[in-house]
Amino acid sequence: MSKQSPIIAPSILSADFARLGEDTAKVLAAGGDWVHFDVMDNHYVPNLTMGPMVLKALRDYGITAPIDVHLMVKPVDRIVPDFAKAGATGISFHPEASEHVDRTLGLIKDSGCEAGLVFNPATPLNWLDHVLDKLDLILIMSVNPGFGGQKFIPSALDKLREVRRRIDESGRAIRLEVDGGVTADNIGQIAAAGADTFVAGSAIFNAPDYQAMINRMRSAIG
Amino acid sequence: MSKQSPIIAPSILSADFARLGEDTAKVLAAGGDWVHFDVMDNHYVPNLTMGPMVLKALRDYGITAPIDVHLMVKPVDRIVPDFAKAGATGISFHPEASEHVDRTLGLIKDSGCEAGLVFNPATPLNWLDHVLDKLDLILIMSVNPGFGGQKFIPSALDKLREVRRRIDESGRAIRLEVDGGVTADNIGQIAAAGADTFVAGSAIFNAPDYQAMINRMRSAIG
Amino acid sequence: MSKQSPIIAPSILSADFARLGEDTAKVLAAGGDWVHFDVMDNHYVPNLTMGPMVLKALRDYGITAPIDVHLMVKPVDRIVPDFAKAGATGISFHPEASEHVDRTLGLIKDSGCEAGLVFNPATPLNWLDHVLDKLDLILIMSVNPGFGGQKFIPSALDKLREVRRRIDESGRAIRLEVDGGVTADNIGQIAAAGADTFVAGSAIFNAPDYQAMINRMRSAIG
Amino acid sequence: MSKQSPIIAPSILSADFARLGEDTAKVLAAGGDWVHFDVMDNHYVPNLTMGPMVLKALRDYGITAPIDVHLMVKPVDRIVPDFAKAGATGISFHPEASEHVDRTLGLIKDSGCEAGLVFNPATPLNWLDHVLDKLDLILIMSVNPGFGGQKFIPSALDKLREVRRRIDESGRAIRLEVDGGVTADNIGQIAAAGADTFVAGSAIFNAPDYQAMINRMRSAIG
Amino acid sequence: MSKQSPIIAPSILSADFARLGEDTAKVLAAGGDWVHFDVMDNHYVPNLTMGPMVLKALRDYGITAPIDVHLMVKPVDRIVPDFAKAGATGISFHPEASEHVDRTLGLIKDSGCEAGLVFNPATPLNWLDHVLDKLDLILIMSVNPGFGGQKFIPSALDKLREVRRRIDESGRAIRLEVDGGVTADNIGQIAAAGADTFVAGSAIFNAPDYQAMINRMRSAIG
Amino acid sequence: MSKQSPIIAPSILSADFARLGEDTAKVLAAGGDWVHFDVMDNHYVPNLTMGPMVLKALRDYGITAPIDVHLMVKPVDRIVPDFAKAGATGISFHPEASEHVDRTLGLIKDSGCEAGLVFNPATPLNWLDHVLDKLDLILIMSVNPGFGGQKFIPSALDKLREVRRRIDESGRAIRLEVDGGVTADNIGQIAAAGADTFVAGSAIFNAPDYQAMINRMRSAIG
Repeated sequence: MSKQSPIIAPSILSADFARLGEDTAKVLAAGGDWVHFDVMDNHYVPNLTMGPMVLKALRDYGITAPIDVHLMVKPVDRIVPDFAKAGATGISFHPEASEHVDRTLGLIKDSGCEAGLVFNPATPLNWLDHVLDKLDLILIMSVNPGFGGQKFIPSALDKLREVRRRIDESGRAIRLEVDGGVTADNIGQIAAAGADTFVAGSAIFNAPDYQAMINRMRSAIG
Repeated sequence: MSKQSPIIAPSILSADFARLGEDTAKVLAAGGDWVHFDVMDNHYVPNLTMGPMVLKALRDYGITAPIDVHLMVKPVDRIVPDFAKAGATGISFHPEASEHVDRTLGLIKDSGCEAGLVFNPATPLNWLDHVLDKLDLILIMSVNPGFGGQKFIPSALDKLREVRRRIDESGRAIRLEVDGGVTADNIGQIAAAGADTFVAGSAIFNAPDYQAMINRMRSAIG
Repeated sequence: MSKQSPIIAPSILSADFARLGEDTAKVLAAGGDWVHFDVMDNHYVPNLTMGPMVLKALRDYGITAPIDVHLMVKPVDRIVPDFAKAGATGISFHPEASEHVDRTLGLIKDSGCEAGLVFNPATPLNWLDHVLDKLDLILIMSVNPGFGGQKFIPSALDKLREVRRRIDESGRAIRLEVDGGVTADNIGQIAAAGADTFVAGSAIFNAPDYQAMINRMRSAIG
Repeated sequence: MSKQSPIIAPSILSADFARLGEDTAKVLAAGGDWVHFDVMDNHYVPNLTMGPMVLKALRDYGITAPIDVHLMVKPVDRIVPDFAKAGATGISFHPEASEHVDRTLGLIKDSGCEAGLVFNPATPLNWLDHVLDKLDLILIMSVNPGFGGQKFIPSALDKLREVRRRIDESGRAIRLEVDGGVTADNIGQIAAAGADTFVAGSAIFNAPDYQAMINRMRSAIG
Repeated sequence: MSKQSPIIAPSILSADFARLGEDTAKVLAAGGDWVHFDVMDNHYVPNLTMGPMVLKALRDYGITAPIDVHLMVKPVDRIVPDFAKAGATGISFHPEASEHVDRTLGLIKDSGCEAGLVFNPATPLNWLDHVLDKLDLILIMSVNPGFGGQKFIPSALDKLREVRRRIDESGRAIRLEVDGGVTADNIGQIAAAGADTFVAGSAIFNAPDYQAMINRMRSAIG
Repeated sequence: MSKQSPIIAPSILSADFARLGEDTAKVLAAGGDWVHFDVMDNHYVPNLTMGPMVLKALRDYGITAPIDVHLMVKPVDRIVPDFAKAGATGISFHPEASEHVDRTLGLIKDSGCEAGLVFNPATPLNWLDHVLDKLDLILIMSVNPGFGGQKFIPSALDKLREVRRRIDESGRAIRLEVDGGVTADNIGQIAAAGADTFVAGSAIFNAPDYQAMINRMRSAIG
């Protein structure tokens, strides 16, 4: 099957937390497709960000776009229903962070959300071997999550190509997302490697004009 | 020494996270003295709330009132400098959550913040025995932190009286704070037991008029 | 208030697990009052014993006597409802094994069971300071739980006397239970120190005649 | 080498724990080959079942059939000698639950037992790459262990085929066991995928006639 | 009973690890009474120092003085027999680092060593309430173990006085040791507060003349 | 590219810890190329050995040879800068011991050291899939680290051959090191399988003549 239409998912970790509703609405109005929601617990990664009640506040504010939750937490299962109930559209997690990966995928689906697996830069792809039929999304990290000041890791391109091949072979409509160091300058190359869903944080929120930046990104995807 | 003047510390865990700057400014304008900032990590308690970048956004928004951080996290030390740098005024933690309580108190002070210890409803007070000279604040929990739907635990009153006695004996200007189920109806009794700093979340933020509610509380303290 | 009538609680950890229903019924017919049920998880103590489904099987077999569950597990909360649903009468746990002791006591009560705290030989009694009003039972360990081949620790007698004093002062009907190395030879001394509820395992199950042994114990209590 | 003769291993997790000796003897008399013994520690999986002393009671009762222990515990090593001493024939564990998988396999063998590795539904098979020469058994989970109410996961069939291929290539007499949702209706298909050892719990113990059910299963294996 | 004769215990954490035998022998020849041996595991404290094989090398080198092991490790039990076998005279541990303090004390004694409890600066003394009859040594930390660059914490003096009172009341010959920031300038005051055993690291090993420094310390003790 | 010139790396875990400077200098004078430095934390493996201050003492003593640190610790990141600062040349760790393998590799490199990954006997090689471009060394364990009394595991030879193939394909100058049970008798076979860097502990330090033994090893490598 052919690749799906591209999705730009601004990460609101780079938004203004004092005006989160307004800033989120603004980036969506500027052309963002999904809201990317990064959850860190100060255990799986050395930072703590935001939880289910922040997500719920966005829904109450009137945000209706898909909210794509990336759990950088360990363990995973206890908090899944909290995010589902708060209004998440999809929930992704790291396979190393759950003893029972298949069970966690089932739990996410049973909570009414789409399910994704996230791969750290060094994590092998064979966690895909027996669960491809249960996935809606695969997220390839192109930086190490939770650590600041990193640039796009070039070997992520090969990894994207390999996952693209696996997805195409499966014939299933699985989104291939990338997160970390994505900019208007490298997004074309990243799309060419097979990604169809692009997380961008500071690249968008630090730009003087969200819409111009998102347009530049879309053009570069081609 | 005599008890210090009362402080009302609205817990912004009950504020609107989509408009956190505005709602915080509003509750301060309505008479709130401190901003109480509840941090949960999904490990020490079964919920995950908000981290240093949310606190920093409040400072960037223009909030200048003291921000009183209550860490419901375990372990404690790694995240202390992050909150200090983000703009915290004081940082409190649970003694059970740090292997080296004296060291953590020192770390908070060295980071330029005031230091507090928090006592869960069942936690014995002898954690005070050897550190009273390093404390700026003692927080008595009158509900179990991180679990919803609880009412004020009556035995907290005896505990407050005992801590008040210890503070007065020490002759030091240590704040005695209380958190959990505080309302305009019971705050008088709580103040009579010795508390001088009062956290209130839903009681204030769910009230139709923040100022009227804070005024009612102040009157009840007497 | 005066001490309550004595309870003999045979620990079925020493029963025949291949004929658990029959052996339990036999020890109750021989005069046992309660069934003492020791749960070990191979984490809090270095042994693993039996879980909720074993308890349920006893209820299904027709055992109607009180079943007194002693949790040597850490953490505690997740498994409490499982034991309540399986038919436990009371559930006791170690304060060191729960971050939120008051909350765990509340959870046990809300599950419809009586709640107890267990003290290891070295554990200080000040875990009683703020929860005495929520306890139905206090269990003093007179051996280290989960380790074999130990004898009654003599300093447990002083500890029992101190707890008896606290219970009497409270005016509440709290059972004072003792577990570890209790025999017909020392039970009189133990009762004199204030215990009113006596766990005995091998002393009863290894005796040729359960009833004769239980009778000897009752006589010694006086 | 050709596939070995089929083994039916009733899981006594579904037996009557109040009459465990009798029920186990009955299912063996009805044609069960091995006793499957599921150990859960409330840490690796959210349930706690039974430990070494239950196994020993079965041996003391007179059960002489092989007892096949499946450890759903983490960590693994401390409890291995306890089960060996209690009378286990074989001991299997999850590779994710031991930091030193080769060492744990050696420990099991040195304790005089056969050694097995267990694969959760999502666990990749490359844990087999360097230890195939030390294995007596490979157990493929076709449900997530420790969670109730699950059905046979269809992708387990492909996984069984892949393991069968690896075993045949190795030329070694390694048992290929399957556990989870096995019934008389699907056992034929499962055997065709390469399994030669079949765990069944409720399918057998909930049947009105153990022998009839085991016979049905054997016929279906063909 | 009267206080015991003073012991100076140089901490070889400050010795030259490239010439540990020679430097240890030298400090003993200069008047050191015991060898203090600090074990850190990078978990209970943020440093890793040295283990049993280093201790054994000292015995093999010919060091016959008492070796006083301070375990800054968590958990404690597994490594106790290793140190006993390597030649330790006494082993002390932190009560927070063992779930079963009484059991650990028994394990140390059964290994043929003297047993001690160590108190961090903030740790309450009620861990002494039920084990005083099993202790050979109580170690009061006057800095936070494992963290560098700290000075003697003044409130340790009050703590020493309180422990001295308890030891005297018990009538038992329990050593009262102090560790952290002890110098020739403050050792007199520390001895006056009740300590009889004095750990000193850099104060001795950084001195140009070990013997002169130890002599100064002994004179100051008076 | 062709295999690099062979390196003999004596493991000073077998040296005399009372005379570590002297013994290390002696083994280097006898022909050792690198100093292999084994760090165990009593958590990742059941032993505790030596930390950064021991390494620093060797540098202060005048050892200038490369020091090759093998971390058998979990987690890894906190202690990396300590070893770099103490004078390590290279630092290797186990991928299972870090949640963020790529980040840990980067941290080692940013600290100015060469970076290596270590594979336990059962650990699959696919941890190499996405980080080969960041590695200076791959260490294949031919015994289980931290457990005594083991012999060279024969299946390590196949594993070495497979890694050799991957390194050669990459065209990068990555050292292929082996550790565990290496002797003059099997080192030829091990070199033939592709290793170019050989750790040996007791084989060298227990030999009557270090130089003769190292010479025998070099001859056997051919």
